[in-house]
This record gives sequence, structure tokens and C-alpha cells, in this order.
Amino acid sequence: MNISLSQAEKIISAAKEKSRSIDTKMNIAIVDAGANLVAFSRMDGAWLGSLDISIKKAKTARYFDMNTGIIGELSQPGGALYNIEHSNNGLITFPGGVPIKNASGEIIGAIGVSGSSVENDHAVAEAGASAI
Amino acid sequence: MNISLSQAEKIISAAKEKSRSIDTKMNIAIVDAGANLVAFSRMDGAWLGSLDISIKKAKTARYFDMNTGIIGELSQPGGALYNIEHSNNGLITFPGGVPIKNASGEIIGAIGVSGSSVENDHAVAEAGASAI
Amino acid sequence: MNISLSQAEKIISAAKEKSRSIDTKMNIAIVDAGANLVAFSRMDGAWLGSLDISIKKAKTARYFDMNTGIIGELSQPGGALYNIEHSNNGLITFPGGVPIKNASGEIIGAIGVSGSSVENDHAVAEAGASAI
Amino acid sequence: MNISLSQAEKIISAAKEKSRSIDTKMNIAIVDAGANLVAFSRMDGAWLGSLDISIKKAKTARYFDMNTGIIGELSQPGGALYNIEHSNNGLITFPGGVPIKNASGEIIGAIGVSGSSVENDHAVAEAGASAI
Repeated sequence: MNISLSQAEKIISAAKEKSRSIDTKMNIAIVDAGANLVAFSRMDGAWLGSLDISIKKAKTARYFDMNTGIIGELSQPGGALYNIEHSNNGLITFPGGVPIKNASGEIIGAIGVSGSSVENDHAVAEAGASAI
Repeated sequence: MNISLSQAEKIISAAKEKSRSIDTKMNIAIVDAGANLVAFSRMDGAWLGSLDISIKKAKTARYFDMNTGIIGELSQPGGALYNIEHSNNGLITFPGGVPIKNASGEIIGAIGVSGSSVENDHAVAEAGASAI
Repeated sequence: MNISLSQAEKIISAAKEKSRSIDTKMNIAIVDAGANLVAFSRMDGAWLGSLDISIKKAKTARYFDMNTGIIGELSQPGGALYNIEHSNNGLITFPGGVPIKNASGEIIGAIGVSGSSVENDHAVAEAGASAI
Repeated sequence: MNISLSQAEKIISAAKEKSRSIDTKMNIAIVDAGANLVAFSRMDGAWLGSLDISIKKAKTARYFDMNTGIIGELSQPGGALYNIEHSNNGLITFPGGVPIKNASGEIIGAIGVSGSSVENDHAVAEAGASAI
């Protein structure tokens, strides 16, 4: 099972709507089950550096099938996954990456959002992921 | 002058329509005036390797403000720009990358398309670039 | 709005003057609104390793439209942006990177300075950024 | 013996003057004897993709202490140095890179120029290199 472009577009649309509703400007990336980019959108005026971060968040969420923030808790100094960010050409392990599931609960891709506080990034990613 | 996300979305929409009309499946990337990604779309079933190629074509077209195929003619063995592809973390110099101009003729970004023959890739990129 | 080369040269000139006045030797990099290098200057005897750091500081300041040191406070272990430095081919998040604004307050680029203590780096960057 | 920043600035100034006299917009990079960047200047409106090319030309000229175009003749298919461009994180081997010598004829650095035809690029690089 893999995400379709039309599903990715529906997710981006919901994420943009949520982003506007909380007055933020986001970079939004969707990857498929193979962790490869399907769709991307940078809202006008969004941080340029968040482009790469949003894509890395989406990939990180699919690489390990969990929210990026959970990995970040384990990658702290002394933690079990300390400095895991060095793998896979760079992970981003703070919140804003969320797996995307289909109606049967299977993971079909992931969304990564960057452009505001990590709380806002995560809220927009959740709004996107729950749109399908 | 820089491309807006709504302009980029209009361009991607026109490119997808053209792609369907000639029965192809494309990766479509839009970069802004600074050669940074604004929007991206991978049609269902499009070649995975064309993801990176479409982005590199868009960047290449903006890097030199010309269609990518023109550079490819100059970068052949014995040509003036032989092996220019080694610059900028990798250029793609065959057709499918086209600068995007606004109504005043200023370059505001570029589109890169990959997924079929270079003739089809270029035709879809042109259809996109001329949509605004 | 984008920085011009003559503005960048004025900024580098002011930064070099400040650097000499506090008896330091700096690498000074200016990027434009697209985070691409416009001008660079390495003062005689400045640290070689600061070459790349000054460029990364300038890019980081433009990527997130804020002083680099602010990001560094958030990227500490346990912080909201821990290990953000793994994005964008490497960020530098200690002081010395400052956005450059035009008279209307719009960000048109950024300066990155490296070669001494972070306090001195920041002071020289500020002197540069406020020269236009 | 190594190039000083003031020498590099004199070279860039001469290169910019030559560039304007032939109505071109150039990226101009100066590296020292260690092949590390000393000074860089991107003229307003110069191709963005020529930023990296100008730096790679300067490095290539110093890596082998000869004009870049000479290496390009040897790196053609069937040539002695075929695909040497894959080394050193990417060489540029068409004209526009020229070693810089001091009054005693010692090589103290190199200049790389990119932004127009390779003939123009080389002419501007020569004008710069002969300014000291």
C-alpha cells in the first residue's frame, strides 16, 4: 500500500488550511512508503531553511514509522539513540514529522512540517495526516 | 521578483494536465528565483529516479536562465562546457528544464520535468511555464 | 528585494574596519535573499576553518531570518531544535550570523563572520549589517 | 608565498572592470596557494550557477598550476585524464581558471571566472591575474 498523489494533495491542502488558521507559514513535505518525496509546498514567506527540514522530518517519520519527536527523546546525550541524526544523510528528530496511515491503519507515507515552533509544526502535521 | 506558491500550483496543474494528455507520468518541480524548491508533484507511477532529475532540471534552468537542453548541447565531449554537470552538486543538462517568466518577462523561477522522453519532458515543462 | 553587490561590498568594508578596530582577523561572507553567496573576504592570517563557518553562518541567518545565536540556544540538548544543525548541509548556530535589512526593514540577505570569539564575531557581523 | 587579501581585491577590481568593458556579468573567485577561497564577488544579475563554477575553476587552476582549459583538453573521452572532473569534489576544466603569480613568477593563488562564454570568462580571468 502506498500513498497516491491525490491523497498527498488532500493532506497538503488540510495542512495549509491549519497553518493559516494558526497564522503560520509552513514548508510541507509528503513522502511515500519508500520515503521518497511525493509532494511539497512552501507557503509564501516561509523560512527557506525549513525546506530541507520539512523533507527530513517526513523521511525520518517514515524511516522509523513514528512521530519524529519520539526519536528526539531517545537521541539526547546519554540516550539510547544518541546522535542518530548522523544517519541517512541527516535526520531531523524534533516534532513535525508524522506517519500517514490509510483507513486500515497501514502506514502509507509520512508528512513533515517546518516553519514555526515545534508545537505548531506538529499540530499542522497532525492536521494533514488525519485528513485522509 | 519571485514566484508565489499560487503561481507554482497553477504551473504544476497545467503541467499535469499536459502530461495526462500525452499519456505520461511525470515528476514536476518548481524552484524560485533563488533556485530553491517551491512546489513538487510526483504523479502516480512516475519513475522514482526522475524525482531528483526534475529538481536538478529546475535548478539548472534557473542557474543559467535558459532551457536545460541548450546547456547540454554545449557540454558534450569537445564542447565549450564539457562536464559542467560536475558543478552545483550535479546539473541535469538534457531537455525538461525551462525558466519561468512573469508578465513583464522577468525570470521568477523555473520548472523541471522528468518521467518520459526528453521531448515529452520538455513539452510538459513548456506547458507549465506558459500557464502564467 | 535582494542585496546588490555594492551594498555587500559596503557591508564587508564596515565589517573589516570593525574587525581591525578590535584587533581580530575575520572571514566575512554575504549571502543574498536566496541564501546564495554574493561576496566573501578572508582577512590575512584569519583561521582557515572559519571560511566555511562564516558562509554557513550567513546562510543560517537567512534560512531562519534571525541571528544564528538564537537558534543555538534552542538547539542544545533537550532544546526544542536539538540537532537542527544536521539540516541544510550543515548549519552553524552560534553567534556571528545576522540578517541584513534594507531601509524598509525587509530582509535582503545576511552576513556571517568567523575568526575570533563568538562575541567578537557577532559584533563584527552587527557592524557590517548596520552599514546600509 | 601566498596571496594577500589586498592583492585579491586588486585582482577582483581589475576583473570587474574588464567584465564591464566587454558587457558581461561575472562571478569572480580568488583562492590562495592552499586552494582555499580568499575573496569572491558576484556581479548583479550574474548567473547563479556560475557561483560554484567560478570557485571550482579557481581551485582547479591552483590544484594543477595551469589554466583550466588545458586540463579540459586532456579530460576528453579517450584522453589521458578522462573524467578527472570526478576528483576533488568536482573540477571544472573548461577555460576561465588561471593561476596567479607574484613578481618573481611564483604561483601564489588562482582566479576563477564564470558568467559568459568561456572565451570571455578566460579574458576576464587573465585581466585579473595580470593586475598584480
